[in-house]
Amino acid sequence: MALFRSLSQMGKRVYLPLPEDFPRKYEFMRKYINGFPNSRTGEGDIIVVDCSCEERINWLGTERNGRKVISIDHHEDNPNFGDLNWVEPESPAAGDMIFHLLRQLGAPIDEKTASALYVAIMTDTGRFSFSNATPQSFFDAGELVKLGANPRFLTGEVYFNFSEDYLRNIGIALFNAHNYHNGRILFLTLDRATTQSFSTSPENSEGIIDFAMSVRGVDVAALFKEIAPSKIRVSLRSRRGIDVSGVAKFFGGGGHPNAAGCTIDANLTTAQEAVLEQIRKVLGYR
Amino acid sequence: MALFRSLSQMGKRVYLPLPEDFPRKYEFMRKYINGFPNSRTGEGDIIVVDCSCEERINWLGTERNGRKVISIDHHEDNPNFGDLNWVEPESPAAGDMIFHLLRQLGAPIDEKTASALYVAIMTDTGRFSFSNATPQSFFDAGELVKLGANPRFLTGEVYFNFSEDYLRNIGIALFNAHNYHNGRILFLTLDRATTQSFSTSPENSEGIIDFAMSVRGVDVAALFKEIAPSKIRVSLRSRRGIDVSGVAKFFGGGGHPNAAGCTIDANLTTAQEAVLEQIRKVLGYR
Repeated sequence: MALFRSLSQMGKRVYLPLPEDFPRKYEFMRKYINGFPNSRTGEGDIIVVDCSCEERINWLGTERNGRKVISIDHHEDNPNFGDLNWVEPESPAAGDMIFHLLRQLGAPIDEKTASALYVAIMTDTGRFSFSNATPQSFFDAGELVKLGANPRFLTGEVYFNFSEDYLRNIGIALFNAHNYHNGRILFLTLDRATTQSFSTSPENSEGIIDFAMSVRGVDVAALFKEIAPSKIRVSLRSRRGIDVSGVAKFFGGGGHPNAAGCTIDANLTTAQEAVLEQIRKVLGYR
Repeated sequence: MALFRSLSQMGKRVYLPLPEDFPRKYEFMRKYINGFPNSRTGEGDIIVVDCSCEERINWLGTERNGRKVISIDHHEDNPNFGDLNWVEPESPAAGDMIFHLLRQLGAPIDEKTASALYVAIMTDTGRFSFSNATPQSFFDAGELVKLGANPRFLTGEVYFNFSEDYLRNIGIALFNAHNYHNGRILFLTLDRATTQSFSTSPENSEGIIDFAMSVRGVDVAALFKEIAPSKIRVSLRSRRGIDVSGVAKFFGGGGHPNAAGCTIDANLTTAQEAVLEQIRKVLGYR
């Protein structure tokens, strides 16, 4: 969005395709691109930002048609799929790279552009708490605040904008917390029976698993979400180098070593027993 | 702690009195002052940091004995109670002022000192989300990360170090959420009946009220904690300029316009009805 705003303000003809399922928590940012001409031309170069693989952009294959693709990214697994690739794995956020680019270009960075860039750095560093919260990420965030980004407003919109349903779902999941092996494993459960407000939309349970990982001593956590009778969505998290991706794969799912997921066709009890068994294997318990 | 470390390393004789009820979430910082000579001399100057009123330091009245008091603070209501007063209301944190002081002095700032200063800025700015999250707070945080402060570790210790009891208390309070006036008022409840792990320690419910304030549309929130039969501790929060300190005062409590509290001798239902009535008056409802 920042790149779009800034290039538009420089007089470039740019088009920004927003996904249909634009996340609700970023809804306030829509106005950052309002009022700019954005008719799709079907020609010109394609700039892909913060995307490590071509397949994630569903229209790129059919609409590339010999157009140049410029890839700007900070993921280290980016295979350089563009015609021009600017990939900086040391950068905390692609938004941070865009900020540097705009300054290099002497491009306009107004309050809304600064806000979009701030949101990129804030979210990619997990509110300045991940290992990519480098000195540079703080310095650049400070510059963006100088340029008009408002940390209070932006943090509130992205992180403290719960629906009451979401609040209640957190409550149910946390109340149903159950630990195993002296708290090394923690299970949270969202069952259909105890909640009226239950929705299968991922947005309604997003981030709940992180509460489990906020408990001291927990090495592996799982959230069991009953999305339909005998259909359980399982989210897995781990730390200290424990790899839970194999657990997810065992049940036909996938993911990363520290964050994986799967769906199990069984009732809650059976699903939890099966997952516990697999986690025990990973942890070396008999 | 940072000031103590740094002054000690400069060869000064310094004593740092820690409070008996040193908060558990800062327990990891104890090692920052281990190994330094800290026998209490009963003489020399007294440096008071981040404290806006004399009365908050219970030993200052009896032990001042003509010793000079140096007050370093960023609260705008500081009445300059020291013999020497350095009060900067524009500063995001007293820890930030200490950082500037240490740099001015050319004092040593090692990894642990930088970590203590980072924690001061991080907590006082609410993880860089309050209105005091100024450009300077980001720039200084970045410098401290350069000097060895580890955002991931420090954020984890201070903010993601829940006990399982605390997790379950959040769950109960959130599950018991009840809204009034189309969600403008939100009540959370921690009752003795539904929780086994209930503890009256403030630490065990600290911050739960903030979840209520994270719900969109909520202007006033209250947490009702049944600390004994017919004894309800009420925490109040508000935004958009709504003053709830009067509600707390009505029940013999006190606080700030946006954060106040009181204790009511009544059962939960009676206490909630009474508080709701007072909040309605503040909001101008009949």
